[in-house]
Amino acid sequence: MKSKRIVVIGGSAAGPKAAARAKRLDQDAQVVLLQKDPELSMASCGYPYYIGGTFDDRNQLICTPTGVVRDPGFFAKAKGVEAMVRTEVTEIDPKAKTVSFSKLDSNETGSLEYDKLIICTGASPRVPPIPGRELAGITPLHAMRDADALHEAAAQAKGKKAIIVGGGLIGIETCEAFAEKGLDVTVVELLPQILMFLDPEMAKLVENHVKAKGVNIITNNGVAEFIGENGHVSAVKLNDGTTLPCDVAVVAIGVVPNVRLAKDAGLGIGKFGGIEVNEFMQTTDPDIYASGDCVELTNRITGQKTLAPYGDLANLEGRVAAENAVKGNSSFFPGTIHSGICKVFDFTAATTGLSEERARQAGFDVVSATNAGLDRPGFMGAKLLVSKMVADAKTGRLLGFQIVGPGEVNRQVAEAAVAVMAGMSINDLAVADLPYAPPYSLAIDHFITSAHILQNKMNGLMTGVTNREVKAKLDAGEKLFFLDVRSPEEFAQMELGIGEKLIPLGALRSKMSELPEDKNAEIITYCKISMRGYEAQQVLHHAGYSNVTVMEGGVMAWPYGRKK
Amino acid sequence: MKSKRIVVIGGSAAGPKAAARAKRLDQDAQVVLLQKDPELSMASCGYPYYIGGTFDDRNQLICTPTGVVRDPGFFAKAKGVEAMVRTEVTEIDPKAKTVSFSKLDSNETGSLEYDKLIICTGASPRVPPIPGRELAGITPLHAMRDADALHEAAAQAKGKKAIIVGGGLIGIETCEAFAEKGLDVTVVELLPQILMFLDPEMAKLVENHVKAKGVNIITNNGVAEFIGENGHVSAVKLNDGTTLPCDVAVVAIGVVPNVRLAKDAGLGIGKFGGIEVNEFMQTTDPDIYASGDCVELTNRITGQKTLAPYGDLANLEGRVAAENAVKGNSSFFPGTIHSGICKVFDFTAATTGLSEERARQAGFDVVSATNAGLDRPGFMGAKLLVSKMVADAKTGRLLGFQIVGPGEVNRQVAEAAVAVMAGMSINDLAVADLPYAPPYSLAIDHFITSAHILQNKMNGLMTGVTNREVKAKLDAGEKLFFLDVRSPEEFAQMELGIGEKLIPLGALRSKMSELPEDKNAEIITYCKISMRGYEAQQVLHHAGYSNVTVMEGGVMAWPYGRKK
Repeated sequence: MKSKRIVVIGGSAAGPKAAARAKRLDQDAQVVLLQKDPELSMASCGYPYYIGGTFDDRNQLICTPTGVVRDPGFFAKAKGVEAMVRTEVTEIDPKAKTVSFSKLDSNETGSLEYDKLIICTGASPRVPPIPGRELAGITPLHAMRDADALHEAAAQAKGKKAIIVGGGLIGIETCEAFAEKGLDVTVVELLPQILMFLDPEMAKLVENHVKAKGVNIITNNGVAEFIGENGHVSAVKLNDGTTLPCDVAVVAIGVVPNVRLAKDAGLGIGKFGGIEVNEFMQTTDPDIYASGDCVELTNRITGQKTLAPYGDLANLEGRVAAENAVKGNSSFFPGTIHSGICKVFDFTAATTGLSEERARQAGFDVVSATNAGLDRPGFMGAKLLVSKMVADAKTGRLLGFQIVGPGEVNRQVAEAAVAVMAGMSINDLAVADLPYAPPYSLAIDHFITSAHILQNKMNGLMTGVTNREVKAKLDAGEKLFFLDVRSPEEFAQMELGIGEKLIPLGALRSKMSELPEDKNAEIITYCKISMRGYEAQQVLHHAGYSNVTVMEGGVMAWPYGRKK
Repeated sequence: MKSKRIVVIGGSAAGPKAAARAKRLDQDAQVVLLQKDPELSMASCGYPYYIGGTFDDRNQLICTPTGVVRDPGFFAKAKGVEAMVRTEVTEIDPKAKTVSFSKLDSNETGSLEYDKLIICTGASPRVPPIPGRELAGITPLHAMRDADALHEAAAQAKGKKAIIVGGGLIGIETCEAFAEKGLDVTVVELLPQILMFLDPEMAKLVENHVKAKGVNIITNNGVAEFIGENGHVSAVKLNDGTTLPCDVAVVAIGVVPNVRLAKDAGLGIGKFGGIEVNEFMQTTDPDIYASGDCVELTNRITGQKTLAPYGDLANLEGRVAAENAVKGNSSFFPGTIHSGICKVFDFTAATTGLSEERARQAGFDVVSATNAGLDRPGFMGAKLLVSKMVADAKTGRLLGFQIVGPGEVNRQVAEAAVAVMAGMSINDLAVADLPYAPPYSLAIDHFITSAHILQNKMNGLMTGVTNREVKAKLDAGEKLFFLDVRSPEEFAQMELGIGEKLIPLGALRSKMSELPEDKNAEIITYCKISMRGYEAQQVLHHAGYSNVTVMEGGVMAWPYGRKK
């Protein structure tokens, strides 16, 4: 029997994984990997840390854990895969089952027959139609050459001025890298907030932290024009007319799937512009699979199609595609829940599932709980976590979890991601048996506390309001009675200054006379994290007040300006 | 209507939680908390860190995050709960619905009627029947007074000799605390291994680490006698006749539920000696609930009853008991999966669900995968993780996950715990969408890699063998061909010395002649972590070798002596 040939197009994340897996599953197969770039299997999520100087040896981005560079020789010897770099595929002929390629260094062309083809062409940085975008000094952060250029620029650019266009994940990671290198950084974001995977008030907490590190963030404003001197960028002009000096600019406003080859071959393309695949990562041609940033996935919560250009998923998709290409369709890829995590100076910002806004957009009737608290007991050097848990109001199913702060976000969001995938409900989470010891978490884990708050809200025991809603009421000039139930010492240290009355919780039962006489008056209670605020609500309800709500997350989650 | 009276016996973890929750749910109720000890709501899991000097202010163990000591005044004012300390309950009369108590400081006695009673009497340290156990200087670590005594002893005892009887969680945490304080520590464990929640070869890795920190660990040996001088312990005599000098001894061989009151009241007691409760945390008397270390829970995986004396569960049980006591049975406590985590010097050791041994004991047909790997990319300062994933061979359901090492164990075991609770299968985990960025994890998370290994084993793609099985074969003098496929540089640094042949993976296809001629010879392959070992197995299978297995976890998971 003639051995099978499996051709893989693309050598970044999904491609190498698919190729290596295919060969392991069928040692008789000939597996060929075609890669346009000079590098293979790049750890592209590590680029910001290379630029920021966490390490300076670029080989670390393309070597195995034992230090062997993943070049064609490595792929041949260790993986049994024939990898051709600087080789651009120019056409797929699905009828003849061939791919045509061109060698970029020699202009030599050729073609290869395939039995099964796996397309992993990735994505390209979105280029905004801004005048001056061709000037030197303006780059995306996408290819290894971009990382090399920015590593070089950052190393020499102390005190120089950097503009980052786009306040998403890569923009914020690059902003930290530049700031670490001593550049004067401004992030320009067209939307009203950075990190769109977070709800606005959560993103605001991260924005405050970035600004506290000396980085300038401009939201609600875009770049209208890049201005140059001698062919090199020297300034940017914003939509509102402001001009900012600029020595280096990074454009990080997202990516678009690379689908030209697939489209020309007649394969189905989805409505978000990615290659259409079924649950087996198979395209509309049964002999062609696709994986990675070039495909559209299913959102596991909404069932809708979505783009999810994440390196971790690319690997998992490539593994599934290879398995099905070799063995026939047997392995299933269920899609994404949009889990993500991002280091932001001393903060971590992370998400899994749907934010409140996205859940509403998807048509869910949503309940949420904001929770500010410590990641471990105070005596173990606790740090703050602020999170927001989102659930379906009808069923209590966990839909999403966002969390930011200096505390141990990584564990919290990982356990939340598994719970979202498993379709667990708030009631399941409220009695979860999670590992506990003081160096690692609180006796009642932050995530479980969030479930308790949400359970209390769903059972009508607590009525909450987000700080964003409170701010809107303040801005609208609504007359409210704000009750801060912290201690005088805490109040002296931090004070919102929104017209609040201070009555410590322990004194509340004996100081009812200081509250509004009208039992229907709107009262909003809070404390440092709003646990005591919640207890105050119980006391006031019991005293006959009918319109008391708790400002969730209290002072620690308040992202707006405060008096002190 | 007369207001309800809810009486709670016990003021450590479950009791205060139940009392506060009951009052929040029914502000009209009178809630009384009776506590024998002088303290309330102690963070008892923090005792080892107080002894070890992470902090020296004992109030930190009994205060709120804002620094208020949780004394009766605090409970009255902030929680609306009447707490009576140094008050021992002497009898429960379930017919009259009263509890009798005695005030320990005044010998005053009294009784209280209850509408609902919640028993949270906790557990007591198991006292072994060892001669000399009454000598001064021998203590358990259970009550706050024990922690105070050991904090004092440790602070003055630099260079003195400590014996810890029992190599469980508390024994190992106390051993670290003493070692941090400069004591010369020996742990004596009757069983063949420490940390029984781990399989033996995993526990051995932790034992090696503890020993490397200068602590002596003696397994398979018990204390036969404590020897005293002037009423103070001066030495211990072991079962094998060895005598060790000893200035301070801690006995930490587990706890027994405190059920005397419940038993005398005629309540059902389970076969493990804990109070019998149903899924509502209700005892055999419908007006009496129970929570915390005094009850028997259901193991959520096996369905069998079990003791689970963990502070985090006590809180969750107390919350459920209070809810049902106030509102009628509506809130469900499903039981435990025995999640646990433990800091061991620079290691963390953690578990969730069943170990391989316990799964077999429970009657499961088990498959497991040992995985050694990094917690994040090498360029981000990666650290080692060694884990063992256990699944049901028939269904692929995740049954348990153990993990040890210097790396980021906390996230791994927390996500595993959620997956065990949710009943997820290996196939679910293999395509999980977990948060990824280089500071926090690998592109393919360690936990997912474990699922991939297990999936490969279940699909017949890989045949594995544990290092424990390999050691048994070596000890039995079996003739095997060991194939180490690392590089010569790696081999020069670390060498098992079990008669292995070194052929780097990249050279394997061209060096087949160095392998046994007999294609049925038993060959065991490995590398640093056994990824290359697995790839070598594929190559050898393809070359016609029929009896090749991979030693899972490779050199990094090998817990026995090695040549270099």
